[in-house]
Amino acid sequence: TDPLVIAGTQFTSRLIMGTGGAPSHHALEAALQASGTEMTTVAMRRVDPTTTGSVWDILRRNSIRPLPNTAGCFTTADAVRTARLAREALETTWVKLEVIADERTLLPDPVELLDAAEQLVDDGFVVLPYTNDDPILARRLEQVGCAAVMPLGAPIGSGLGIRNPHNIELIVEQASVPVILDAGIGTASEAALAMELGCDAVLLASAVTRAHEPAVMAAAMRDAVRAGRGARRAGRIPVRRYAHASSPRAE
Amino acid sequence: TDPLVIAGTQFTSRLIMGTGGAPSHHALEAALQASGTEMTTVAMRRVDPTTTGSVWDILRRNSIRPLPNTAGCFTTADAVRTARLAREALETTWVKLEVIADERTLLPDPVELLDAAEQLVDDGFVVLPYTNDDPILARRLEQVGCAAVMPLGAPIGSGLGIRNPHNIELIVEQASVPVILDAGIGTASEAALAMELGCDAVLLASAVTRAHEPAVMAAAMRDAVRAGRGARRAGRIPVRRYAHASSPRAE
Amino acid sequence: TDPLVIAGTQFTSRLIMGTGGAPSHHALEAALQASGTEMTTVAMRRVDPTTTGSVWDILRRNSIRPLPNTAGCFTTADAVRTARLAREALETTWVKLEVIADERTLLPDPVELLDAAEQLVDDGFVVLPYTNDDPILARRLEQVGCAAVMPLGAPIGSGLGIRNPHNIELIVEQASVPVILDAGIGTASEAALAMELGCDAVLLASAVTRAHEPAVMAAAMRDAVRAGRGARRAGRIPVRRYAHASSPRAE
Amino acid sequence: TDPLVIAGTQFTSRLIMGTGGAPSHHALEAALQASGTEMTTVAMRRVDPTTTGSVWDILRRNSIRPLPNTAGCFTTADAVRTARLAREALETTWVKLEVIADERTLLPDPVELLDAAEQLVDDGFVVLPYTNDDPILARRLEQVGCAAVMPLGAPIGSGLGIRNPHNIELIVEQASVPVILDAGIGTASEAALAMELGCDAVLLASAVTRAHEPAVMAAAMRDAVRAGRGARRAGRIPVRRYAHASSPRAE
Repeated sequence: TDPLVIAGTQFTSRLIMGTGGAPSHHALEAALQASGTEMTTVAMRRVDPTTTGSVWDILRRNSIRPLPNTAGCFTTADAVRTARLAREALETTWVKLEVIADERTLLPDPVELLDAAEQLVDDGFVVLPYTNDDPILARRLEQVGCAAVMPLGAPIGSGLGIRNPHNIELIVEQASVPVILDAGIGTASEAALAMELGCDAVLLASAVTRAHEPAVMAAAMRDAVRAGRGARRAGRIPVRRYAHASSPRAE
Repeated sequence: TDPLVIAGTQFTSRLIMGTGGAPSHHALEAALQASGTEMTTVAMRRVDPTTTGSVWDILRRNSIRPLPNTAGCFTTADAVRTARLAREALETTWVKLEVIADERTLLPDPVELLDAAEQLVDDGFVVLPYTNDDPILARRLEQVGCAAVMPLGAPIGSGLGIRNPHNIELIVEQASVPVILDAGIGTASEAALAMELGCDAVLLASAVTRAHEPAVMAAAMRDAVRAGRGARRAGRIPVRRYAHASSPRAE
Repeated sequence: TDPLVIAGTQFTSRLIMGTGGAPSHHALEAALQASGTEMTTVAMRRVDPTTTGSVWDILRRNSIRPLPNTAGCFTTADAVRTARLAREALETTWVKLEVIADERTLLPDPVELLDAAEQLVDDGFVVLPYTNDDPILARRLEQVGCAAVMPLGAPIGSGLGIRNPHNIELIVEQASVPVILDAGIGTASEAALAMELGCDAVLLASAVTRAHEPAVMAAAMRDAVRAGRGARRAGRIPVRRYAHASSPRAE
Repeated sequence: TDPLVIAGTQFTSRLIMGTGGAPSHHALEAALQASGTEMTTVAMRRVDPTTTGSVWDILRRNSIRPLPNTAGCFTTADAVRTARLAREALETTWVKLEVIADERTLLPDPVELLDAAEQLVDDGFVVLPYTNDDPILARRLEQVGCAAVMPLGAPIGSGLGIRNPHNIELIVEQASVPVILDAGIGTASEAALAMELGCDAVLLASAVTRAHEPAVMAAAMRDAVRAGRGARRAGRIPVRRYAHASSPRAE
């Protein structure tokens, strides 16, 4: 067993899903089931948890833990307020913290994010911040008490993969909380790569929900995260400039 | 079901293994089992199939089909002779054809390879040639009757991954026989990428047998090949320069 | 003519040099001359401008404008103090602002950097901040009044090139002050790439001063920056997946 | 001085140009002048050297050596015939040998190419073959007596750059004739990279002739080739995973 542990809670699956972008509730449910995920983010500003027939029902009946997020918040104040509403509505202190700088890039605002993280930690939240891939900001987020750091691979929904693997490695090397690759993943090999770089988990939504066949891609992502984790633990061969025969020459 | 079909024979697993480089027979057997492979190459010039307690026993008791290869052959004549010896010894007409140009790069010699392929096809063999990533040579090999084409990702044992994905895509687009990525894979994400590029299967040895924990890496490769195949079939999202919110803004 | 304009001052050369790492004053002078640079950074904490026989003499006699930097400063207070000392000693209001987070990565601390930039702008400085490649931080630095933004390609002295060209493009698209690629360049093609991505200038030191032959590399960097600028202005051909004959078939 | 020497003939410029794709003769001439080239290929099947007011006049009045090529030839016989016609018409024994496999990829046919090269060398030609990036084929071409080898970076006119730098390095390491990167270059940084990998020269056409401003791109390519050559000779800094301060800490 090789559980993922965030703030003392164990997870068997290292794939965290998002819910946005699915063509239907039916397709979303099939994808979540195929993914094997145990925790899934939901945008508090977009979904009302008191309605029935909704994404909340899907999570409930599949025993998937909801992780409220602050998607759509552009300031510290907005994000903090949204997190508090989520806490009341969902009775969870966990929050995926997003403080976005603009609509075009959906990149996090480093200053507002750090500020919001500090306030929410002080207020007793378990804070999982969506951040850029700057190792210094990741360290600061950990220092103010975040329970994980969630650097992007590329802009949300871009499918560009991991633009700067070197930064992800620097973040992993220094972190003592889980590192969760969040945003940018477009296909299975990129999810595997995230894990090979040393990430503890992968969070993705569009790559699955907007794929031509969401459930098929969800299963692929489940396998890819497991493959990448296994390869990291197995200890890969070194890279060589020249060939290396797989067996000695016969006499 | 989504079987791999080579020369009319169906395989459930799309991971073909090699045997060279394992630290022990015990480690090799554990890795082959973990990989889920159904066909494994064995170097005819290096292994005597009549001996017991050998790699042949491992394959036999795990019901893994042996695929003799002509590793270590540097000329058409040598490769053809080795293939014929294998046919007699193993009672199989299948052969992984390698005609290597030199010890340092272990790269295939395109001229000798094409010549040997033609002779062996004429002689009734099912020929699976290890080739470079040139789309034109791949097409010629198919034209002379090869049952698959097996382009390299990078030099044997280098772990450099797929150096030229564009060429692999060109080969896949034009091929009407299975394309098997052979050589160069170092880690799981690269095996997944091979499948995402449209390859029908992956063949690897060193990445597993020389990993720190071969059986763990073998399981990772099994998952990675499945992940890459699934992602290819699922239809990935397009790549975008800018972000794309996973759900519409709330009103 | 295609001058670089920073804070109203025109430069013909788009290559800004640093002085650290040179094997000797003689080698440094030859390299600066070969580079064609018109502005060169000097670390205020490392060099005393009142001494003679020093790097200051080299700049003076070659009519190269000195750009004091705050290398070695780890806090806003330290950087602001160093900038003020430089202003007094050199009678310039220009400063390359560095606020470093740690010795191992030498990456900028985004929070301290933004704070120091704001203070120095308010104090009348022309501030050129060394920043990470986050488009949001770059925009904030411009918003507080910086005269340019200087994103890194990779960590200082690493020679890793431009790790995330996509981020550099995002910074260029949105900036209305000059964008100067600073840090990470290892060889000439990377300096050319920086300019092709739309940067207005390149700042480098180690790639030249620590090369085997600094003056030869300096001339190469001069040519590369000019080449990249020219290619950007010339309007490159689009990338195609397939071939495109350079001339129509003959009848 | 650092001349390029092919078959005993010295060149100062390491940029060889092609003529196809230019919007007008006037634009072509301006581009050739700006490039500083001393040798330019012309497609024999497309241009009649006896006509006036043509590309031949441009080359003549700019003292640029014409290098006839066999573009548009798909077989050994066709290429050999075209080369002989060129020799008669232009009174030169030099030929850029192209034997193309198909219209879509314009990739060289390795078998026909090697065959044609051997015949033309036997017939007294100075043969410069356009080849794929296979190090083994490059070696064979050298072994049959070619005066240079000209591997592609990517398909003709694709602007994809150098898809497999590793193969180009392998070719350079083993070659004792000049290696000329031919085809695939889209922009200046890629031409610089070719030289940094150790190529002796670069041949390109579309990247200049189809650029928005051909003469500006031609000058950029001239600078880029010089930059890359200089960087190769200067001995670049090693790549480091972590930062390396450009100067020692102050006391």
